[in-house]
Amino acid sequence: MTTGVRRRMGVEERRQQLIGVALELFSQRSPDDVSIDEIASAAGISRPLVYHYFPGKLSLYEAALKRASEDLAARFAEPQEGPLGNRLLRVMRRFFDFVDDHGPGFSALMRGGPAVGSSATNALVDSVRQAAYEQILSHLGVEDPPARLELVVRSWISLAESTALIWLDGRRIPRGELEAQLVHDFAALAAVSAAYDDEMAGLVREMALGEPADSPFTELATRLIALAS
Amino acid sequence: MTTGVRRRMGVEERRQQLIGVALELFSQRSPDDVSIDEIASAAGISRPLVYHYFPGKLSLYEAALKRASEDLAARFAEPQEGPLGNRLLRVMRRFFDFVDDHGPGFSALMRGGPAVGSSATNALVDSVRQAAYEQILSHLGVEDPPARLELVVRSWISLAESTALIWLDGRRIPRGELEAQLVHDFAALAAVSAAYDDEMAGLVREMALGEPADSPFTELATRLIALAS
Repeated sequence: MTTGVRRRMGVEERRQQLIGVALELFSQRSPDDVSIDEIASAAGISRPLVYHYFPGKLSLYEAALKRASEDLAARFAEPQEGPLGNRLLRVMRRFFDFVDDHGPGFSALMRGGPAVGSSATNALVDSVRQAAYEQILSHLGVEDPPARLELVVRSWISLAESTALIWLDGRRIPRGELEAQLVHDFAALAAVSAAYDDEMAGLVREMALGEPADSPFTELATRLIALAS
Repeated sequence: MTTGVRRRMGVEERRQQLIGVALELFSQRSPDDVSIDEIASAAGISRPLVYHYFPGKLSLYEAALKRASEDLAARFAEPQEGPLGNRLLRVMRRFFDFVDDHGPGFSALMRGGPAVGSSATNALVDSVRQAAYEQILSHLGVEDPPARLELVVRSWISLAESTALIWLDGRRIPRGELEAQLVHDFAALAAVSAAYDDEMAGLVREMALGEPADSPFTELATRLIALAS
């Protein structure tokens, strides 16, 4: 029956619609600058009805962040096939796609601010970092990482976050260059750690052995040797 | 006149005393776990009197953070003499001294949480990052950095923060090793950027020219070449 009257949405469907509308607005402006009125208007419902589905802006923000976190974590999944450098490069491309799509929302979240920084939002950000960490370890084939490998992986994840944030602030460097650079940075941080620790040296040698001549890691080594000479 | 009665403190003196007491407690436990009652008790005054000097815990927390930020920023000052690697290593030692002294407070601040993440605290953290950034540029002798150098310096600062946070979580790696590693990481990130950009390559070559054979940078290069062979 088409009556010309808009079909009434179920509770969960309406919640999902509002989350989608909020994420769309947060991708254009910082969540601090987006009002419930705007979200209501973009969703075509009244402001009180928004509050019926989400008791306050923070709860809508947290729900939106939860969906975005799941979206981002899903992009880390990468088949365990081919050179490590190429796998990481594909993940970096999907990471920058996400950052590109969610610019202002991503910046506001990572920089903290009035609308963010609750325990729930911090826990979501940490869960994404943990997903990235576990993905990388599984690709390295390491189950019980030594402290120095854990440090390299976790600190590199924070380097990837800050690189993306700096990129968003003016986009002065082509993103493709930064995607490749982060892959190289990972190799460089692992190599620095390996230069002073035998266990890390063993791990890095094992990783390097599986890389073909056209892997991003091998290319970097060639360029660095050229630079040093 | 010694009367046996404690001298009454002036307003500013009392505020400074409370800030010192709060910082001392935040160096042992997260600010979220420290109550105004404890601060009052440690300062030897009543709880209402604390509120006379600071309207709420957040304002006391912000005042404490302001003092700690100034303390940390002051540690970045380093004479512009001798090899760059050695200068950076001395700053890293003072940075880890600070992190060591303020462990739980530093972690809580950088990880965000209920008591932190206000606009004022974020602005203070950013001011410390900016001070670090400007110090490094002045040591590099660069006034108007190209985008790629700015990225290397700013993203390395976030790497130093995350390395310190990971170290605090269990202290499983000797801090002296991490101080040296961060100096090497700086060189490695600059080298990666230089491997793909001529302007960066010129800057890195200029820096490398001034480094003597016993500088941390030169030592790293020797070790990396040994690792690669």
